[in-house]
Amino acid sequence: MNKTNPRIMPGFMELLPENQILFNNIIDTIRETYESFGFLPLDTPILEYSDVLLAKAGGETEKQIYRFEKGDTDISLRFDLTVPLARFVSMHYNELVFPFKRYQIGKVYRGERPQKGRYREFYQCDIDMIGENLSFINDAEVLTIIYSLFKKLDFGKFTIRINNRKLLNGFFSSLGISNSSDAIRIIDKLDKIGLDEVKKELAKLSLNEEQIEKISKFINIKGTNEEVFTSLTELNISNETFNEGLNELKYVVEYLDKFKFDKDYYKIDLTIARGLDYYTGTIYETNLDKYPSIGSICSGGRYGGLTKHYIDKEFDGIGISIGLTRLFSVLLDLGVIKPKTKSLSKVLIVPFDETNISYSMSIAELLRKNNIKCEIYYEDKQFKKKLNYANRLEIPYVIIIGSDEEKDKKATIKDMKTGEQLVVTLDEIIKNIK
Amino acid sequence: MNKTNPRIMPGFMELLPENQILFNNIIDTIRETYESFGFLPLDTPILEYSDVLLAKAGGETEKQIYRFEKGDTDISLRFDLTVPLARFVSMHYNELVFPFKRYQIGKVYRGERPQKGRYREFYQCDIDMIGENLSFINDAEVLTIIYSLFKKLDFGKFTIRINNRKLLNGFFSSLGISNSSDAIRIIDKLDKIGLDEVKKELAKLSLNEEQIEKISKFINIKGTNEEVFTSLTELNISNETFNEGLNELKYVVEYLDKFKFDKDYYKIDLTIARGLDYYTGTIYETNLDKYPSIGSICSGGRYGGLTKHYIDKEFDGIGISIGLTRLFSVLLDLGVIKPKTKSLSKVLIVPFDETNISYSMSIAELLRKNNIKCEIYYEDKQFKKKLNYANRLEIPYVIIIGSDEEKDKKATIKDMKTGEQLVVTLDEIIKNIK
Repeated sequence: MNKTNPRIMPGFMELLPENQILFNNIIDTIRETYESFGFLPLDTPILEYSDVLLAKAGGETEKQIYRFEKGDTDISLRFDLTVPLARFVSMHYNELVFPFKRYQIGKVYRGERPQKGRYREFYQCDIDMIGENLSFINDAEVLTIIYSLFKKLDFGKFTIRINNRKLLNGFFSSLGISNSSDAIRIIDKLDKIGLDEVKKELAKLSLNEEQIEKISKFINIKGTNEEVFTSLTELNISNETFNEGLNELKYVVEYLDKFKFDKDYYKIDLTIARGLDYYTGTIYETNLDKYPSIGSICSGGRYGGLTKHYIDKEFDGIGISIGLTRLFSVLLDLGVIKPKTKSLSKVLIVPFDETNISYSMSIAELLRKNNIKCEIYYEDKQFKKKLNYANRLEIPYVIIIGSDEEKDKKATIKDMKTGEQLVVTLDEIIKNIK
Repeated sequence: MNKTNPRIMPGFMELLPENQILFNNIIDTIRETYESFGFLPLDTPILEYSDVLLAKAGGETEKQIYRFEKGDTDISLRFDLTVPLARFVSMHYNELVFPFKRYQIGKVYRGERPQKGRYREFYQCDIDMIGENLSFINDAEVLTIIYSLFKKLDFGKFTIRINNRKLLNGFFSSLGISNSSDAIRIIDKLDKIGLDEVKKELAKLSLNEEQIEKISKFINIKGTNEEVFTSLTELNISNETFNEGLNELKYVVEYLDKFKFDKDYYKIDLTIARGLDYYTGTIYETNLDKYPSIGSICSGGRYGGLTKHYIDKEFDGIGISIGLTRLFSVLLDLGVIKPKTKSLSKVLIVPFDETNISYSMSIAELLRKNNIKCEIYYEDKQFKKKLNYANRLEIPYVIIIGSDEEKDKKATIKDMKTGEQLVVTLDEIIKNIK
């Protein structure tokens, strides 16, 4: 028989069980945290009409998309979770309660050239709050969500960097640079390419020396929140957008103080810009202090015009996203995270032979009733091989059931780490396992 | 600005939050149950190389598949979770511990003509145990898993129907019908079309009257397990495959007895056949007693040659699958399941005005530390509108924080169902909410 070579496509992540367990634990923590802040689940189709998904896309996004025809239908795979959210809100706003807070954890697709650390299928874990004129306190709340989440995930010390797009736009506008997108994209790269390169690239935009000097000074503003605000004020910029942005930023910081938010876990960083024109206010990036090269592990911000491509009614939103597949893969490579267990079962029940299976099942039922995951080894193998299954899967306890145990209504518990064995009554099993 | 009509494709399910919460609860129960029996998670890509996914497919499957080219790559969307499992085991059998027990809950795709109750994107919730010469006790264990699961899901009384493919094949072979697939497919429809139609269709296969009479007699065998076994023995069939099948079926029933499996929840049904040639032994279907028209809600069986299209090494398996999207949609329509809550938050914290937000946040943190999901209402609205948010989302408790509460380190808890209000100290909050 002709064999087909079993393989998966490059850029797709598939994990062995021990890593999948670890991955699922992270997903569970993200979901629990999002839910603990009142976010509601959404699960949109992975396939959508191309005209719907691409209503606002263009350029790079469109090139990367998986798109095909089936019959007369032009279909695309979703490339993020924000466009489907916009489409969903546009269809259902009459049925939703606002502010509408939703989370979505799901796979998205980008047909990029495969390269190290780039995935074509990857999980995004998003929250967004959608409403009209959302209070700016929400902008501060988002930091508390990021903080709670990454504290629990325990990937090491992190810093949330915040900035404000109005501040950036207003600043560039005050320099007479009306289309600030290109300049913003350049300063966004400061971390990666350094100040000198940034200056060179700005020069290519035909900015004059004075403009470049002012930009350099601006992106060099550092210090405590108070120092940053003082420096910004001292720039003496009389641009309305700039001042709005400054006030929004101050307001967010004020609420972080009210929330007693640990100052060690965030900072204002005037260089972060989040590429696209999408954002209209507060923006966030999150970095692991020890691994700056990973880049931002959780980003987002405030945006407007969410539904403008679909309906007249306008909504704004604040959202963050975690690209989990890449993050997981990098953290695993770095050894920051490690699989903790090869099995979910806490107990393997080993009937000595077929005659002990009925009693073994009653013990399995007892364990499951007490929320202890377990399995029974049914294969007709030597006793040593049965134990070997537990060893290889690192199942912590084996309960051995022979005719003695069955006669006495007892069970032999073997701790697979220490090798210790203990004969206990049924009542004592749960206590000994827990 | 030109608007794009926001819509999703027919055959795709997308739920409002209250239904999504309900759906997720069901998924959680399925996952917990599968894990409690020792099954390990797997998450394969949705996109695979077409030659890999279609290695064994043909006919109907191939027509229904979503398949496209991107660059030089011929790509398909997975249409089930079994082919990816076969591919996965073929790639990784050296790294797996056997019997390998895995579950996968994920979306699969079939480009069928959309019609009521047919989905093009739907969740399958599968378990499979894979090994070499798997003990037949596993065939009985699978019934205990189905039982545990549907008891917990509480969709009403169900019956698991079991049969054995060897028994069927051997029976048809004993009648001189060597290619039994067509005949099996016809008797599989007995429930839907009735005995007369079955006979007519069998006649079309150019079976003679004696053969058809024997088949009618066979599929009419009913009664207790003992009665069925007696009737089968009395057929006096001296076909090896038939007798193997009969012995396997007896063995499974013997173990169900040992497991003290409730006889009211399963029965031998010689007419179920599970269409394809895939299966080699025990087969399962599960029906809701009150809603036979839904068809089988959980099906599967024992199969061989799992990896034969990819590698020389042979594995057999036993698996079941639940097509959850259709089941969910039907049960919702029938009113068997109903959304229980529009929100996950148990508490909405309502600061009377901005001055109370800091204290409100400390209460939110206290609740979350105690695993109580909650949210703070930040929008600058009238007090009534704030309460209205809780009302519309059916959040059971509102905690009101004004200056009095803050001064006295207390909180006012309002039970939104009864309208009762209670002023309590911080220590008492948790107790009163739980």
